[in-house]
Amino acid sequence: MDNQLANLIKEKFGIVFGDINLVDQAFTHSSYVNEHRNLHLSDNERLEFLGDAVLELLVSQYLYREFPHLPEGKLTKTRAAIVREESLAEFAKDCGFDAHVKLGKGEENSGGRTRPSLLCDLFEAFLGALYLDQGLDSVLHFLETVVYPKVQAGVFSHERDHKTRLQEVLQRSGDVLIDYRLLKEEGPAHERIFHTEVYCDSKLIGEGQGTSKKNAEQAAAANALQRLAKK
Amino acid sequence: MDNQLANLIKEKFGIVFGDINLVDQAFTHSSYVNEHRNLHLSDNERLEFLGDAVLELLVSQYLYREFPHLPEGKLTKTRAAIVREESLAEFAKDCGFDAHVKLGKGEENSGGRTRPSLLCDLFEAFLGALYLDQGLDSVLHFLETVVYPKVQAGVFSHERDHKTRLQEVLQRSGDVLIDYRLLKEEGPAHERIFHTEVYCDSKLIGEGQGTSKKNAEQAAAANALQRLAKK
Repeated sequence: MDNQLANLIKEKFGIVFGDINLVDQAFTHSSYVNEHRNLHLSDNERLEFLGDAVLELLVSQYLYREFPHLPEGKLTKTRAAIVREESLAEFAKDCGFDAHVKLGKGEENSGGRTRPSLLCDLFEAFLGALYLDQGLDSVLHFLETVVYPKVQAGVFSHERDHKTRLQEVLQRSGDVLIDYRLLKEEGPAHERIFHTEVYCDSKLIGEGQGTSKKNAEQAAAANALQRLAKK
Repeated sequence: MDNQLANLIKEKFGIVFGDINLVDQAFTHSSYVNEHRNLHLSDNERLEFLGDAVLELLVSQYLYREFPHLPEGKLTKTRAAIVREESLAEFAKDCGFDAHVKLGKGEENSGGRTRPSLLCDLFEAFLGALYLDQGLDSVLHFLETVVYPKVQAGVFSHERDHKTRLQEVLQRSGDVLIDYRLLKEEGPAHERIFHTEVYCDSKLIGEGQGTSKKNAEQAAAANALQRLAKK
């Protein structure tokens, strides 16, 4: 395994693979295998097949527990938004995996390294390799670092209401008082801007602005969710 | 929980639920909830969402390990054949689950109890409940009884070659000698029937007949796979 990749995985995620062949395979695109037939390498497609299912389960379980009142239809919709190609490609880039995938020359020259479908497969293959090497809990721990905070912050629930979401998150461990305070409004009547703060048990946890009181409160809730996700 | 259902699950599969509300919920269709609003029941749809993903992972893992040389495309195709609605509805019926699902009157009268989509959801909801109650290994054990033997027998790999499959299965734990013997042929030339036996290290393990030597060998291999799956 290339040393830079081993260091990246270890330093960024605290993961040391027992079987380094697995991580090598996860970072080997079929185009590389095809151009180096004499090396008898395996590409990452079978690992991607497995990793796809590992991700599906862990995301489903997370959503099931995190949103105890969300009906099946909305759970399915949110899951689909998280595991779609574009999202997984972003995760692969967030992890810095794109720099390390081995591609054939043709694939490299045609921009394969930035192609969402290739990066999505790479991310899933990595999860498959991690699952085989260290089991489900280790993949769960990795997703807790890389994926769940974004879900928590509402990145995949655009149509949902940030205030409701913030309430769910804050009241998970008991009742708290959530209070939105209008700080100031400014500008002429036709383009008025409202500034709002949100407090949890009198502690400031977020602030936002908007063209109406309602929008400003939603913005403050979204800001609070983002801050909470970073904790 | 209805006692007959508890007995069925215990006697047929050796499973005793810690939280019987989960299995109750798995066997409650939304039509029943809608007709009994005063009871404040939960239907099985969220459990189905979770169970679907549990099944997907365990089937993927099984195929990944069982067919170490099958490319990703064929793994995906086989997985799709196993987890499709019709297959899962059959598994639900094999388990005797169809008799125990609670339906609303309208759903019952319109034949809901035999509808594949309803039975498929029921099967997945049961897996979701089992997963929450007892974890992944317990679902794995259940699938080893209910699902994998059918995969082993080649039920979901119609286009695949039974002789190749038999070889994979038998040689998993080391080299063996597989030997097809033509026992007899009978009937007139234009509708000749061939009878073949297959031996593994000189032990008879299957027999079959067909309109050509090749077909008879395939039938013998399929027969051997079925016998092995029942062991």
